[in-house]
Amino acid sequence: MKMDHLQEKTIKSEEIYIGRVVHLRKDEVTLPNGKKSTREIIEHPGAVVILAQNSKEQLVMVRQFRKAIEKVLLELPAGTLEPSEKIIDCAHRELEEETGYRAKNWEKIFDFYSAPGFCNEKLTLFFASDLRKTKANTDHDEFIEVVEFDKEKVFSLLQNHQIRDAKTLIGILWWLNR
Amino acid sequence: MKMDHLQEKTIKSEEIYIGRVVHLRKDEVTLPNGKKSTREIIEHPGAVVILAQNSKEQLVMVRQFRKAIEKVLLELPAGTLEPSEKIIDCAHRELEEETGYRAKNWEKIFDFYSAPGFCNEKLTLFFASDLRKTKANTDHDEFIEVVEFDKEKVFSLLQNHQIRDAKTLIGILWWLNR
Repeated sequence: MKMDHLQEKTIKSEEIYIGRVVHLRKDEVTLPNGKKSTREIIEHPGAVVILAQNSKEQLVMVRQFRKAIEKVLLELPAGTLEPSEKIIDCAHRELEEETGYRAKNWEKIFDFYSAPGFCNEKLTLFFASDLRKTKANTDHDEFIEVVEFDKEKVFSLLQNHQIRDAKTLIGILWWLNR
Repeated sequence: MKMDHLQEKTIKSEEIYIGRVVHLRKDEVTLPNGKKSTREIIEHPGAVVILAQNSKEQLVMVRQFRKAIEKVLLELPAGTLEPSEKIIDCAHRELEEETGYRAKNWEKIFDFYSAPGFCNEKLTLFFASDLRKTKANTDHDEFIEVVEFDKEKVFSLLQNHQIRDAKTLIGILWWLNR
């Protein structure tokens, strides 16, 4: 499908901030009607999300404090790509760092954008099974509680709005419906 | 449930950039183990997402160019809260601006966080029905194509990975399963 009539062309791109995880830039663009506008864009290295299912068909989840919203959220294991890291390697690393599990079977489900209106973060969702416990091995600045729930419990958490993280909602809705 | 043992306390908060839509700040925090770390946080005013269903039980969607990822995405109508705007007023305004529809029936489904690892954006999902066409009335810098799809078509778009926007995936998975 031709989409040129919706496109915005970059006139100028200004780097505003280079952070540890996110970068911020401001683009001046030409709109399809020839007028000008600006776009503030968060550059993110990309991330992985993992639906890890144990031998009892339970889902491995993590509870962690999120400074941005000052709340503890119940989420799927996830994490950000390191420089030049392959997506699947990131998934293996993050699952083990956050939950202490390694998985033998990995399946890529799909990928999606968390907030494409202002951020380029792409998340790749994996299904992981045939889990083996190694050890909990969390990053120095992540404090994580690992919990394992069966389908009924996950469904009731969803019904009671206990799942409030977008990537986790997507993963769980896929897992419950597959 | 007590969650104090996961919490991070702010020592210092530094404003880095005040933009048109997003603000960026950097927090120095004390971790639960007493060590220090930093958090880069995107402050966002919050947003709405709308599942608008017409009298033929079709879903109203929008195609729009997203500069952050240089792609045209198929999304649910959505938009950012204006200063001191009520969430429901924002939903009415955005539905009409993006699609030219007003809805008589509104139902709040739930809210969720798009990217809580680095951003405080909270999205509120609405179901809107009993639609009346007013006129297409897009923002000066939004170029939007409105499309209306029945359940079978939406399901096939989902199966073929044509839906790659997180808020849209969440809304559609809810709509297909309700």
